[in-house]
Amino acid sequence: MRTPNLMIDAERLWSDLMETARIGGTTKGGIRRLTLTDEDRAVREWFRSQCERIGCTVRIDEVGNMFALRPGRRADLAPIAIGSHLDTQPTGGKFDGVLGVLAGLECLRTLHEAGYETNAPLALVNWTNEEGSRFAPAMLGSGVHAGVFDRAYADARQDPAGVLFGEALDGIGFRGDERVGSIALGAMFELHIEQGPILEEEGRTIGVVKGVQGMRWYDVEIVGRESHAGSTPMRSRKDALSVAARLVIDVERLARDVADAVATVGMVAVHPNSRNVVPGRVNLSIDLRHPDAAVLDELELGFEKVLKTLEAENAITATLTRIWDSPPVPFDEGCLASIRKASEDAGFPWREMVSGAGHDAAYIARIAPTAMIFIPCAGGLSHNEEEDASFDDCRAGAQVLLQAVLDYDRRFADSVPEFQRSRSGAR
Amino acid sequence: MRTPNLMIDAERLWSDLMETARIGGTTKGGIRRLTLTDEDRAVREWFRSQCERIGCTVRIDEVGNMFALRPGRRADLAPIAIGSHLDTQPTGGKFDGVLGVLAGLECLRTLHEAGYETNAPLALVNWTNEEGSRFAPAMLGSGVHAGVFDRAYADARQDPAGVLFGEALDGIGFRGDERVGSIALGAMFELHIEQGPILEEEGRTIGVVKGVQGMRWYDVEIVGRESHAGSTPMRSRKDALSVAARLVIDVERLARDVADAVATVGMVAVHPNSRNVVPGRVNLSIDLRHPDAAVLDELELGFEKVLKTLEAENAITATLTRIWDSPPVPFDEGCLASIRKASEDAGFPWREMVSGAGHDAAYIARIAPTAMIFIPCAGGLSHNEEEDASFDDCRAGAQVLLQAVLDYDRRFADSVPEFQRSRSGAR
Repeated sequence: MRTPNLMIDAERLWSDLMETARIGGTTKGGIRRLTLTDEDRAVREWFRSQCERIGCTVRIDEVGNMFALRPGRRADLAPIAIGSHLDTQPTGGKFDGVLGVLAGLECLRTLHEAGYETNAPLALVNWTNEEGSRFAPAMLGSGVHAGVFDRAYADARQDPAGVLFGEALDGIGFRGDERVGSIALGAMFELHIEQGPILEEEGRTIGVVKGVQGMRWYDVEIVGRESHAGSTPMRSRKDALSVAARLVIDVERLARDVADAVATVGMVAVHPNSRNVVPGRVNLSIDLRHPDAAVLDELELGFEKVLKTLEAENAITATLTRIWDSPPVPFDEGCLASIRKASEDAGFPWREMVSGAGHDAAYIARIAPTAMIFIPCAGGLSHNEEEDASFDDCRAGAQVLLQAVLDYDRRFADSVPEFQRSRSGAR
Repeated sequence: MRTPNLMIDAERLWSDLMETARIGGTTKGGIRRLTLTDEDRAVREWFRSQCERIGCTVRIDEVGNMFALRPGRRADLAPIAIGSHLDTQPTGGKFDGVLGVLAGLECLRTLHEAGYETNAPLALVNWTNEEGSRFAPAMLGSGVHAGVFDRAYADARQDPAGVLFGEALDGIGFRGDERVGSIALGAMFELHIEQGPILEEEGRTIGVVKGVQGMRWYDVEIVGRESHAGSTPMRSRKDALSVAARLVIDVERLARDVADAVATVGMVAVHPNSRNVVPGRVNLSIDLRHPDAAVLDELELGFEKVLKTLEAENAITATLTRIWDSPPVPFDEGCLASIRKASEDAGFPWREMVSGAGHDAAYIARIAPTAMIFIPCAGGLSHNEEEDASFDDCRAGAQVLLQAVLDYDRRFADSVPEFQRSRSGAR
């Protein structure tokens, strides 16, 4: 790592990560900090007080999104945001989301201590309910901010205990008075762990994330005929599971044959699921992702064709239903240029990549120039209490984040203010 | 059908089937008559009164097995039994088990009306808890009678609501005072629907059942690595479900390659069973059956070999555990000769076959000469409210049952009384 003018304090960042990890900390070293719970309130209060301590104004909108604002030289510019989330999975790790917010906090502290004044204001954002574990869907706060969902929709989400999102938000006292979407952002940078193995496998420190893959979810139902496992000869069976097994293998084969495609059968329900009954029906899910929508179309046709063949070869019926379609999200070239430059300047090995997972940045990209920075995580493991990222990689990520934001601020806020102003009103 | 001297009354048998089907009858035309429930008590009371009406003495043992005894010419001979069960699956049909008992009742009525005196006494038996749906394991009453389980074991079985078998038995008032196993049987014949498609497919009326297949149950665990469906490239995955799918296909292939073998994967549990997580672990069951234990050994070795190959080709671990082994049961040649002769004499198309399912006869065969008679059921369907058998086939089955019992009584009870006496004390 080359020494830049402004260096983040990696020890302080690490200490924040470990301190907040105790809020909802689990015995296995992970975090259980579901959105809008007492633990979420505690970390939100911690976050607010840390931001106010360095002179930021913390504004909160009607769905609980928190914006810590640091003024810039030009009040006419929409703030450049650094954002991610402080909520976790039920058995989550210490880095997913949290790193992006705390690294942002460390960036603001570094600027504060150096007395550095940016051109545009900065906004450090904690988006509400990114995980979607308590209230589906995921990325709800950023989705509302970007106009993907409205406030009433968010308020009406229900957790498994029957509690409404709106009730829970009021309950922890974090319903703000800023109208949703009213705090316009000029751009957003999100630092996150990769949640996959590529950077670690290749020994690279920084992922310059060009976009988020397109994602489609399918439900498949295969109907054969339930029969007695002891008295039904092999030739007389209509075994739905046997056909499902062929589908699982074909889905995997189709995805392997296409560069950058991933396809996953993650859920399977066998009916009647009894040891001595030939399965009469199997329901399963397919999760398909690729950066290019045309390739998703092609693979979807491939699935349809496989099912037709399985129907023709076996006396069963099979249906494929697409239940969700999230188009590919390309990130902003201006933001990416700043991240690439920051990685180069700091001397970290980097590569461009596409995010396999959804992130708040995917929704914010609809209304403002946005990009993401990835750092490696051990074994690609995430959504798991054993999730891990190294001290050095967290430092690298926060440093690149700071330099990218400052580069973007210099290049864009200064030279094309019209661009930013027009984007900030885009929704 | 040729006209024999003694003919059962098929209308009366059918009427009994339809009358008792109302005890626990379901809207879909099936029966829900779980063992030791109020419905079971009702059908037991009906059964007792019908048997007493034709002069039988009904004795009940300590686990609720009911023996309706009709005296023969020779009191020194152990009775020839006709037995099956009146309990059903939770969504059972009108014929499984019930046919065997009611056809037996029809045989006794026919003999009663004709004033026919057999050499040996006859015993019509309703075995307790054949289905095992409420209290596992199945075939509990016949198993206790045959000394496979003891009375204390039976009493301690627990239903899903926590009720003990012994409590339920006392509750319906059907704990008798006959010590278990004390009513020695000289032989047993069981008429049952096939529960498979073979007789129907071949257009035959009678299955002469030479024995019950050997049966082995296995648990398989495949452990890969749980990972994110979006950010884990296909090449980096250790997908337990992908390996499980290969196993399902190989198990099916191995069974297809061996005549008379059946193998079924009936239960599958995928962990964590989430749409966007590559499965880290899959547990599944294999049910393997064949009439020959040596072939079961061979197939078991085949499964082991497939798992070793899957382990070698994929970075996963796989274990196969045999959790149950029920050896093949050969039925008695003397009983079979009587069934073959009865089928020939009555002029029904018949074939020899092996039962794929377990039956009370499989346990009784351990202590007395035993064999079974099958008739077709529609589509091979059983353990299902749509289970169906035709009027004509029920008549044929009951007629063959009667003639087989009488033939056996003539040939064996008369000519080799020592044989019977020694068998009756065999346990």
